[in-house]
Amino acid sequence: MKTNLQRIKKDIEQLAKFNSSPNKGLTRFSFTKEDREARNYIKNEMREAGLKVYEDAAGTIFGRLQGEIENGPVVMLGSHFDSVKNGGNFDGPAGVVMALEVARAFKENNVKPKYPIEFIAMIEEEGGRFGGGLFGSRSMAGKVSRESLDKYKDKDGVSIAEAMKEFGFDPDKIYEAERKSEAIRAFIELHIEQGPVLEKKNIDIGIVDYIVGIEEIEVTIKGRPDHAGTTPMNMRANALDAAAPAIAKVSEFAIEAGEGTVATIGTLNLKPGAANIVPSDVIFTVDIRSKKEECKKQVRNKIINLLKESTARTNCNLEIVQKLDVAPVKLDEQIVADFSKGCDELGFKKKVMLSGAGHDAMIIASIAKVGLIFVPSKEGRSHCPEEWTDYEDLQKGIELAYYEVLKLCK
Amino acid sequence: MKTNLQRIKKDIEQLAKFNSSPNKGLTRFSFTKEDREARNYIKNEMREAGLKVYEDAAGTIFGRLQGEIENGPVVMLGSHFDSVKNGGNFDGPAGVVMALEVARAFKENNVKPKYPIEFIAMIEEEGGRFGGGLFGSRSMAGKVSRESLDKYKDKDGVSIAEAMKEFGFDPDKIYEAERKSEAIRAFIELHIEQGPVLEKKNIDIGIVDYIVGIEEIEVTIKGRPDHAGTTPMNMRANALDAAAPAIAKVSEFAIEAGEGTVATIGTLNLKPGAANIVPSDVIFTVDIRSKKEECKKQVRNKIINLLKESTARTNCNLEIVQKLDVAPVKLDEQIVADFSKGCDELGFKKKVMLSGAGHDAMIIASIAKVGLIFVPSKEGRSHCPEEWTDYEDLQKGIELAYYEVLKLCK
Repeated sequence: MKTNLQRIKKDIEQLAKFNSSPNKGLTRFSFTKEDREARNYIKNEMREAGLKVYEDAAGTIFGRLQGEIENGPVVMLGSHFDSVKNGGNFDGPAGVVMALEVARAFKENNVKPKYPIEFIAMIEEEGGRFGGGLFGSRSMAGKVSRESLDKYKDKDGVSIAEAMKEFGFDPDKIYEAERKSEAIRAFIELHIEQGPVLEKKNIDIGIVDYIVGIEEIEVTIKGRPDHAGTTPMNMRANALDAAAPAIAKVSEFAIEAGEGTVATIGTLNLKPGAANIVPSDVIFTVDIRSKKEECKKQVRNKIINLLKESTARTNCNLEIVQKLDVAPVKLDEQIVADFSKGCDELGFKKKVMLSGAGHDAMIIASIAKVGLIFVPSKEGRSHCPEEWTDYEDLQKGIELAYYEVLKLCK
Repeated sequence: MKTNLQRIKKDIEQLAKFNSSPNKGLTRFSFTKEDREARNYIKNEMREAGLKVYEDAAGTIFGRLQGEIENGPVVMLGSHFDSVKNGGNFDGPAGVVMALEVARAFKENNVKPKYPIEFIAMIEEEGGRFGGGLFGSRSMAGKVSRESLDKYKDKDGVSIAEAMKEFGFDPDKIYEAERKSEAIRAFIELHIEQGPVLEKKNIDIGIVDYIVGIEEIEVTIKGRPDHAGTTPMNMRANALDAAAPAIAKVSEFAIEAGEGTVATIGTLNLKPGAANIVPSDVIFTVDIRSKKEECKKQVRNKIINLLKESTARTNCNLEIVQKLDVAPVKLDEQIVADFSKGCDELGFKKKVMLSGAGHDAMIIASIAKVGLIFVPSKEGRSHCPEEWTDYEDLQKGIELAYYEVLKLCK
């Protein structure tokens, strides 16, 4: 191993201390006291590793290792260091620690890269404070407008722009964070899986080939609120009867679509919501994710066709609102192949898999070749205090990242 | 017609004025200022009709017309004069006005009954203030204990006993309200249908032969709250997948059972209830009503069997709590036949039907022969400000009640 397990453990444990909700999981929102503390820790560790440290206009931390080609395209690696409310110690920090430890390995092994390397730690990926999320990566991809910094506010009404100023960043310079495609050789992210697959199958490394596309629809069905005792079955306009066939089929449709497609009804509300009143309204969401756009659309269309038929049959009205529609992102084929070869050389059990959640890598893929490494999540838990990855598993992911960055910077 | 449309209209309109929620439907809870006002109106109208007026220990108003046989078994008629919160003008009062108008018809036509007649106005049928409900009739049937008067409380923590004392009744005498079966010849109630059948089929009178039995079960299914993006379909324990087959079949099971059986899922909640989390918990109620106990049980058993299969298949846990189980009540066959003959003689279109809701008649059926007349409800609406019955329709029901009481008191 070129990396050091104790240092990895120390990084995770130290970063976990910069937390506004001790004993209730990790909460570290952007542009806060905890952000400052974690930021100082990361910057200090970067300096210790011999990097030149600075921050971009959005607040992302960069530690730069100069290459032989001084102004050549850079190899970037890292992840984010903010968290959700009451989350865990690994979602985000695992990839930041990866960057720190790879930097140390470069120093210890005295590797001089041909191309410059940027070890990065992004913020507000979760959108925990301001909503939206993916802030650091979207700023780099030129997808954050100055206006949006006034629009997104935290629960106390503080805008991103106000929080940035208070923290020492200039919102008017946000466009300076944008990176040109030709100036980036590749971006490598490491993240916890946040799902159960690697642990269940006893696999060390997930090599992500696709980040799923996500479509969320909100379905509203309106019937009539009749008395549950005095209204014969054939005189009802029962909104739940109209919704039932789709509710019963959503999972089946996802399985039929294949390609790892998933679909979930996560919210469902009845109105008026009394035991003795026929439900007049059913409102539910369907979250559909797939690595193939056509699979996502297939599930969506099957659900809508079924609902059209069932609402007509039950004398109900149907309204469908699309809340979200993001296309799938294919990650770089060559990096996937490199990762696979790397696992074989390093003796790690690997699985090429898709990512069911969005990540900074998905955004940066619009301006650079991207690779994403997953490490196992205990019981698939994430965004909760129980979120856990064994340090030995995290180290394997970091070893693979080091292997790949070495290759990319040559 | 032996009855007077204008007086019926006036009674309904006057009673509607004793209302704690003007412009938001009728709200008249028991042992309140509005109860007192309505009570005074009813007692006064009873006295005007030549009745001897008194109240029983529970607060039910009695107007008695003496019979030739002074201590003979009584013919009783009436309904309740309390309402739900923000209800309508007819649920309850329609039957009280029936009693008032029949009493006036006796006086105007100078009819001297052989058996005594008690025109009654009961309270707290809806349970709007204290929960439970059917208070006046349950007191007469000896089904209200002294202890329960301390147990049931309104939203301000005032018990029935406290409210009774404050109002001038003695809770310690509640047992004196009990009536012996042998002292009652029959009880006739008139009520609005609260359903759409009579209006839709253009029928004047519903002759109730059965009051449905009601079973309510609360189903709780527990699975696991996995991430909707990162958890493959075959690694989920989705509580909604476990609930779906039953949700889809409840209406069908009721139709298969026949005999006017109805079944309704009126409440359904998902936990944790986020669009991107697989639902770990589904909690829903099933309300099943039928005139045949075996039909009610059949629907219940089919639902439970389906749930056992689907929860086992989806790795979820199933818990079922029975919240309510009331057997169906068959009303008096002779009175049903009399009503039918009466409709023919009076020229009213009739339909023998079941009552899908509970009524005081259901309770009094345990101590007396009972008949229940339904009059049409506009669009089947009830327990809402829009609740409406045309006065002409109400009058037809009252004419039939008069016809039957004349028969019963001879």
